[in-house]
Amino acid sequence: MRRLELKTQKRTQFIDITSKVAEAVRSSGVQDGFCYVFVPHTTAALTINEHADPSVARDLELALERLAPWNGRYEHREGNSAAHIKASLLGSSQWVCVENSRLQLGTWQGIFFCEFDGPRQRQVWIRLVNQAVDA
Amino acid sequence: MRRLELKTQKRTQFIDITSKVAEAVRSSGVQDGFCYVFVPHTTAALTINEHADPSVARDLELALERLAPWNGRYEHREGNSAAHIKASLLGSSQWVCVENSRLQLGTWQGIFFCEFDGPRQRQVWIRLVNQAVDA
Amino acid sequence: MRRLELKTQKRTQFIDITSKVAEAVRSSGVQDGFCYVFVPHTTAALTINEHADPSVARDLELALERLAPWNGRYEHREGNSAAHIKASLLGSSQWVCVENSRLQLGTWQGIFFCEFDGPRQRQVWIRLVNQAVDA
Repeated sequence: MRRLELKTQKRTQFIDITSKVAEAVRSSGVQDGFCYVFVPHTTAALTINEHADPSVARDLELALERLAPWNGRYEHREGNSAAHIKASLLGSSQWVCVENSRLQLGTWQGIFFCEFDGPRQRQVWIRLVNQAVDA
Repeated sequence: MRRLELKTQKRTQFIDITSKVAEAVRSSGVQDGFCYVFVPHTTAALTINEHADPSVARDLELALERLAPWNGRYEHREGNSAAHIKASLLGSSQWVCVENSRLQLGTWQGIFFCEFDGPRQRQVWIRLVNQAVDA
Repeated sequence: MRRLELKTQKRTQFIDITSKVAEAVRSSGVQDGFCYVFVPHTTAALTINEHADPSVARDLELALERLAPWNGRYEHREGNSAAHIKASLLGSSQWVCVENSRLQLGTWQGIFFCEFDGPRQRQVWIRLVNQAVDA
């Protein structure tokens, strides 16, 4: 398992990690297979979405804030339930296919680390699966 | 990677692709393993849900519209932020186990391609993983 | 495929299945690879979130109820559309990496079976993938 270290600066922050994941793929030497990306945190998530225009990630941040407002009524006494809820809505892992040592993403797609309870020191775990392409 | 071509007709449209994915499994010759299904788009998604009664998919479409209204206030100037948000809420990939050359889904489950910014020409990428069943 | 049987007691109920999944990993003998967990139901889901403090799961249950209220206006005549919607928002499968025969989860993470239309008899399908760790 490869571990990326990330330092977030704000409570809510989407960080485009596509190039870092692509670098992990290249350095692994895996040509064909899959790339598994996972966050070992309960108040952060991963999502795949447009990374050309940063306003898309900002609109997604705001939409999630409306769905799970930070200042809502929650039972959990740490006060960060909204972050846990957003984490489950987006999910903790993503899989991207690898062909010719490259992540197989659509033209506009990037992989985002989604911080919902920062600033914090975070990790992203990456594991490559070597798998000859099937027929 | 196999590529399905889909032509959507409406802005929001759930298309049951279960039989097309099952056909990709059969034609691959993979008997045991996994089927990975991915949308290379940022305003479309995949979900697994009931495909017996089409009203379930319609209720899901409407619920997502309430969570991310098309005419909400968004920053992204293309005007389709709602579609990006819905895409992240459902996710861009699904994995289904394959045994005896068949998708292992529950009785009522089907795989839906979810269009949120149609009509468009779309793709679904499918990759089969051959994996002998473990103990 | 291994099949866990679960009996839920309430309409909405989050059940921490981490130890059961970990036991399936141990009994499989797989040391390195991945663990795939899937619910073959359309009104239940899986999520990974904090399992140290049970109030997190309760806040997530309540947040989902606000996003898809049981008594909302739905077309599906079985009356459980809210459960289908929640199932798609969280998703039907999770993947966790296995190293040294152990699930690779973060310190606070657990795997939850999420019942949204109980009480019912339910299954969780688990499949282990043996995969030597890559470089």
